[in-house]
Amino acid sequence: MKDANLPDRARRAIAECRCIAAMSEEPGRTTRRFLTPPVRDVHALLRVRMEALGMVVGTDAAGNLRGRTKQNGSNRRRMILGSHIDTVPDAGAFDGVLGVTLALELAELAQELKLPLPIELIAFSEEEGMRFGVPFLGSRAVAGRFDPALLALKDNDGATLEAAIRVFGLDPAQIDQAALDSDVLGFLEVHIEQGPVLEAEDRSVAAVTSIMGQTRFALQFFGHANHAGTTPMHLRRDALAAAAEWIGAVEALAQQTEALVATVGRLDLEPNAGNVIPGSARVGCEVRHADNDVRTAAAANLLAQARAIASRRGLKLEQISQTEQDSVPMDERLTAYLAEAIETEGMTPRRMTSGAGHDAMVMAACVPTAMLFLRSPGGISHHPDETVREEDVEAALRVGGKFLQRLASEVG
Amino acid sequence: MKDANLPDRARRAIAECRCIAAMSEEPGRTTRRFLTPPVRDVHALLRVRMEALGMVVGTDAAGNLRGRTKQNGSNRRRMILGSHIDTVPDAGAFDGVLGVTLALELAELAQELKLPLPIELIAFSEEEGMRFGVPFLGSRAVAGRFDPALLALKDNDGATLEAAIRVFGLDPAQIDQAALDSDVLGFLEVHIEQGPVLEAEDRSVAAVTSIMGQTRFALQFFGHANHAGTTPMHLRRDALAAAAEWIGAVEALAQQTEALVATVGRLDLEPNAGNVIPGSARVGCEVRHADNDVRTAAAANLLAQARAIASRRGLKLEQISQTEQDSVPMDERLTAYLAEAIETEGMTPRRMTSGAGHDAMVMAACVPTAMLFLRSPGGISHHPDETVREEDVEAALRVGGKFLQRLASEVG
Repeated sequence: MKDANLPDRARRAIAECRCIAAMSEEPGRTTRRFLTPPVRDVHALLRVRMEALGMVVGTDAAGNLRGRTKQNGSNRRRMILGSHIDTVPDAGAFDGVLGVTLALELAELAQELKLPLPIELIAFSEEEGMRFGVPFLGSRAVAGRFDPALLALKDNDGATLEAAIRVFGLDPAQIDQAALDSDVLGFLEVHIEQGPVLEAEDRSVAAVTSIMGQTRFALQFFGHANHAGTTPMHLRRDALAAAAEWIGAVEALAQQTEALVATVGRLDLEPNAGNVIPGSARVGCEVRHADNDVRTAAAANLLAQARAIASRRGLKLEQISQTEQDSVPMDERLTAYLAEAIETEGMTPRRMTSGAGHDAMVMAACVPTAMLFLRSPGGISHHPDETVREEDVEAALRVGGKFLQRLASEVG
Repeated sequence: MKDANLPDRARRAIAECRCIAAMSEEPGRTTRRFLTPPVRDVHALLRVRMEALGMVVGTDAAGNLRGRTKQNGSNRRRMILGSHIDTVPDAGAFDGVLGVTLALELAELAQELKLPLPIELIAFSEEEGMRFGVPFLGSRAVAGRFDPALLALKDNDGATLEAAIRVFGLDPAQIDQAALDSDVLGFLEVHIEQGPVLEAEDRSVAAVTSIMGQTRFALQFFGHANHAGTTPMHLRRDALAAAAEWIGAVEALAQQTEALVATVGRLDLEPNAGNVIPGSARVGCEVRHADNDVRTAAAANLLAQARAIASRRGLKLEQISQTEQDSVPMDERLTAYLAEAIETEGMTPRRMTSGAGHDAMVMAACVPTAMLFLRSPGGISHHPDETVREEDVEAALRVGGKFLQRLASEVG
């Protein structure tokens, strides 16, 4: 991919992210939830950029800003590029937004290269689930999987999702029409990794092979809350000691199982007082893996170990909840094109799974989908310190350009 | 100890505890903190009982209700009997109070047996530390160890300890005069065990040899709070996984060390969210043993293990606090008399340490002190289900009577 402008493009994509980060619900920090006022400023900026590329621009009823280039050549089927523009509270500047500003650069690059490939650029309105508690509202609508029951969701101020859409000047009755037609080649999302893997391996980018599936469950160990001074060790039923033993088992299983991650992120004790043996310990655990069978077997193993620990210690164990989300594979052909492009650009064609959910996960149910990860310095995301390296953004542009060239050569 | 009235005495001591339990700050449950209104009712009841025994009764400036029998024979030196009448919130009926109602029965028994042993009965005003955050206010005054600086302590309503004493009709300037003179043989406190040991061994009573010393400390493990999905196991710095490993080490050391108890009763995570690797884990630990050297060595060992675990895992460890309270031995001679009395009454002369603090701990600094434990069914205390068995109360009366006879034979 030879383009003298690439360093400038990379710098511009980054600068636009910094500019958009200032469009916030809160002065001094970046918080931009679904269809809140600063979203209008983001749309205004992106609309200008899209129109400068000759795109036809509009906002669908789910609040996604969408721009389409005109057909160039005989191929009518378009490639979709984009990511989301909402953020978590006190966010960084790049999660989601970089995928949109890079899409603008890639669309312009495709025009300069005169690729016979129509492009639709989508700035998804919602991915983080911060305002209404449910994520992927934007991509659900585009993928034709928006359940109208969601319109009754309420935010913390009591406003419904339906009302939020109306207040933004859109018509919730038209959400169906946000769904893609069939003239689509696929979807490419570029996103920061939000993890430490590429940094640890000193790589710029990787092709995502799948979004890991996830099992979440909560358990509660019930022992006896007794006086910490008067109860000898052999007469205790210590709920925390049991939970601690199990937390060790969770870590050990994950360390022994290739590519499995398992986390106890939450632990709540009763009564949680220094001089009382804990009477109950509630733990929240999640297990992720690209392979659904590996994941569900691991979760079952951990549950069995919890039961064994509780039983050996004379404690009661209750399972409070369990939710499952299966792994979502990316499209094999498009992912192979991405890997090829990475290699052509002189890098190792690293493939990796995504531990986090993304719009690509929802889009994959409807169109062939590929995803490109960029290194996250320090593995930091969802934090103001979230950043990217210029060289990695440039690498993503080179790979994205190559990928579009490859697609165009196939359909042209 | 032959006394046909013993079963009646036991039943009366228990019934009086039930009656006093109804004297509460809160309807329907027993809460009676230092010098709150229901304490007046308790004093009124106990005063009637003391006066019926011919005692001279008064309330000292620390709120302790005290009654003294007249001298009977040539011996001027008196034996002190008693325990506390304050409670924790939502308490049982027997913690402390049973030691007072049994003292009444023992004083009457001593009179019937015409023992040449003056007796002072003390209903200590404060032991639990619930109103002003500092325990043993009553026994501190009696032991001559009441620091006047304590008078500035405030309760949750902003009232000072000094004001609380005045409101009760007492003069805080006279607290010095609550201190014992030198005509004292010793102090005997009868108290429920508040633990499961005697029940597990199917015994009624035991002589307490010492109040265990205690080391309390708080530690904080600092790792990195990262995304639970995107951070592979080998790149994690999981503060909870480290804390869990250490909690296992605490339990193991206590199980391996004779008569040591060590408890992690408190654990607080940041951010404590299901999908975030814990960034910090703060643990509160306490270690108790009758031998100060064993205790301090154990605490040092646990601290060293925490450092080693943190270091191996690449975490930072901070020690937040550490407080030490040395073990308090009971008087050897009086304790031997108690053990003898237990054996004479046909029971195994079980000796045990107390894991909890008691007024006896404070009194031991000033007079020879002994303590008798009664079985706590279910090991339950500080709870409405706290109870005692009639047969054990009777056993305590038999042992207490024998103990007073032995003392009287020595001084008579």
